[in-house]
Amino acid sequence: MEQIRTVEIKEYVGQRVRLQGWLHALRRLGGITFLVIRDGWGIVQAVTENEADLAALAEASEESVIAVEGEVMAVAQAPGGYELHRPRVELITAVSEPLPAALYKRALHVTLPTMLDHAVVLNRHPQRRAAFRLAAGVMAGFRAALDRRHFTEIQTPKLVAAATEGGANVFAVEYFGRPAFLAQSPQFYKQIMVGVFERVYEVGPVFRAEPHDTSRHTNEYVSLDVEFGFIEDHFTVMALLREVLAGIFERLETEYERELKLLDVAVPEVPPVIPHIDFVEAQEQILAEHGVDVRGEPDLAPEDERRLGAWAREEQGSDFLFVTGYPMAKRPFYTHPDPARPAYSNSFDLLFRGTELVTGGQRLHRYEDYVQALAQAGLPQTPFASYLEAFRYGMPPHGGFAIGLERLLMQLTGTGNLRLTTLFPRDRSRLLP
Amino acid sequence: MEQIRTVEIKEYVGQRVRLQGWLHALRRLGGITFLVIRDGWGIVQAVTENEADLAALAEASEESVIAVEGEVMAVAQAPGGYELHRPRVELITAVSEPLPAALYKRALHVTLPTMLDHAVVLNRHPQRRAAFRLAAGVMAGFRAALDRRHFTEIQTPKLVAAATEGGANVFAVEYFGRPAFLAQSPQFYKQIMVGVFERVYEVGPVFRAEPHDTSRHTNEYVSLDVEFGFIEDHFTVMALLREVLAGIFERLETEYERELKLLDVAVPEVPPVIPHIDFVEAQEQILAEHGVDVRGEPDLAPEDERRLGAWAREEQGSDFLFVTGYPMAKRPFYTHPDPARPAYSNSFDLLFRGTELVTGGQRLHRYEDYVQALAQAGLPQTPFASYLEAFRYGMPPHGGFAIGLERLLMQLTGTGNLRLTTLFPRDRSRLLP
Repeated sequence: MEQIRTVEIKEYVGQRVRLQGWLHALRRLGGITFLVIRDGWGIVQAVTENEADLAALAEASEESVIAVEGEVMAVAQAPGGYELHRPRVELITAVSEPLPAALYKRALHVTLPTMLDHAVVLNRHPQRRAAFRLAAGVMAGFRAALDRRHFTEIQTPKLVAAATEGGANVFAVEYFGRPAFLAQSPQFYKQIMVGVFERVYEVGPVFRAEPHDTSRHTNEYVSLDVEFGFIEDHFTVMALLREVLAGIFERLETEYERELKLLDVAVPEVPPVIPHIDFVEAQEQILAEHGVDVRGEPDLAPEDERRLGAWAREEQGSDFLFVTGYPMAKRPFYTHPDPARPAYSNSFDLLFRGTELVTGGQRLHRYEDYVQALAQAGLPQTPFASYLEAFRYGMPPHGGFAIGLERLLMQLTGTGNLRLTTLFPRDRSRLLP
Repeated sequence: MEQIRTVEIKEYVGQRVRLQGWLHALRRLGGITFLVIRDGWGIVQAVTENEADLAALAEASEESVIAVEGEVMAVAQAPGGYELHRPRVELITAVSEPLPAALYKRALHVTLPTMLDHAVVLNRHPQRRAAFRLAAGVMAGFRAALDRRHFTEIQTPKLVAAATEGGANVFAVEYFGRPAFLAQSPQFYKQIMVGVFERVYEVGPVFRAEPHDTSRHTNEYVSLDVEFGFIEDHFTVMALLREVLAGIFERLETEYERELKLLDVAVPEVPPVIPHIDFVEAQEQILAEHGVDVRGEPDLAPEDERRLGAWAREEQGSDFLFVTGYPMAKRPFYTHPDPARPAYSNSFDLLFRGTELVTGGQRLHRYEDYVQALAQAGLPQTPFASYLEAFRYGMPPHGGFAIGLERLLMQLTGTGNLRLTTLFPRDRSRLLP
């Protein structure tokens, strides 16, 4: 008899098969018992009118690990269209404790703290795990889009000697009696690696010791980082980002149909060219349309981003909008200025449905520019000596971007809190599970 | 004119093309000048008898960033078989500083400290970067082998509340006024995720605060982790590991021919079934063959592993050897004992050419067994409460393994020090570059 996965059942109609998984639900309705088994990919229902078939489960409650053999039947009203008849059930690991929430219900009805405290078991819920399966799809789509363009994957150190994104908001580590830090981003290393591979990407954790507690920040997240050389300016970077996003969403549409359906998620359309608006124009636009004067502010507030997102949706028919040319004042020291307007930068944010999803831009590439930028930022050269060495030995014009994996999932699935699209989130008050 | 990558040159014979990259070498031989340009993938030579063609490089030394246009000619004695004639050269970023070592020589002749201190620029050497390109191939081959088998990729937190592999050798982090640790492995989380996805893998950094300084240890490395459910015992895990290794090496052979050739590396053959030897038998074998009595020792010393590796090579014709059934005493608390011999474990090490490459095995899966194992190890339950929750709610028999990326590369390329196959290594005395 074939041992199969639930999602393969349609290929076995009329045959007896064996499934292994968790006892997802067990319901008795007028003399008929419905047993739902969940394996790592889906669920299948087994049906019997003979209680003796289920004798092995007498002591077993939901989430017990079981095996079920049965004959595959196509049944229109069964979940998924197929079910098992004449089941034989085997108990592998018995569970008797009540669950923190019912996993068999379509949606989990729990408070955020309950969800997070019991993520170890509640992440088994089909909707939860569909979201995290999409995370795998995002990573795969990201890599495939870049592999096709001859990028090389790198893994750079997370224990570092200097903060990349400014001195605050960095976790300190006791490193053999010396101070070290957790990398806030692979920024320095991905730039250095442009000198080696020209085009690089990295998927890995980044650590931000931000003390604020908001629904869209956590203290550890997965960053999808890209950096590449021989660009014209930030528009070259934006064009690549467009291709990468299109690649990610195409991957989700072609290989994650089941998950998208379960979550009722429509994959956004990435326009052939994503519309863009200059930072200063964006502020003028907000004044003209909303009567709110944010001119002179060095950054956009979340509500400004929402306004611009709505405008992009209505006026440009796009879920995506690039805002370009942010003031240098609010950008990190390695940002390349706009040669024509040195107070503004060759940088961008990508808004997706009115929330910042990606930040990127052109970086400085000349050694002298770095020396000057560090001095202007009031930063000493010594902690950056290794980083600077890359620029002493020739770097091309280059740039890149970073996509927050959990942020992308949050906005894609319309979840209101980043913690809900993070497998095991870390915030000021949470280190467990 | 087409802008191409060096490795695409053979498709453009007779055409004028444009290349961008670094000035790898500039040599004058009897009135002829040879200019070698290196881009992110390879090198191409341009040749001219007219010094004026190279006027733009008058002030530029090696590693300057340049563009070269020229006509592609097939020339048997040129490196790679093709070269550019009638070049036009453009200087993009000038370099004037002498390099810490000559990058154009076939091999880098530098001491280990020089190599590591200047990794930022010396990693540009063709042999160095070929090794790190292989790293990308290993990761890609690893993922592809598991994707084919319906595994799901996960990313688990690196900031954790409890040490997974024992209380020593763990880095402490100051986490908003509380102690946290850097994950020594994703062990607990990958096991927990077997309850969600059944089959999972992760590629990510792990952190070991091991105070010893050996050629085969560093304090941060990349771990290729696998965990999956519904196994028979550790032999199911070993069978999967065999498939994954075969997948990795097949990927290298098919897509990294250039890198393997440059490094003069022969990809090992993975036998259809990797030979295995029981731990106790291995000790007997060492006594019989070498007259060295290590019976009763709870672990194998590196020289024991070398002896076993040589034996596997000579007697079994295999670069690989599984040693199974290590004593429970030296294995972590979550290790599953051999039901027939409870002092020994359902675990294994895989030796590759006489050095441990992979550790794995079957884990405990029953809640009661964990409670007992923690008590026996003298460990409190509280720090493991979240981990234990997964087992309270039903886990199947499961197991997995972890491959050290840099270790695999070290053994594959025959490099004597793990630091040389790590992009930017971290050890007791090194946090930079």
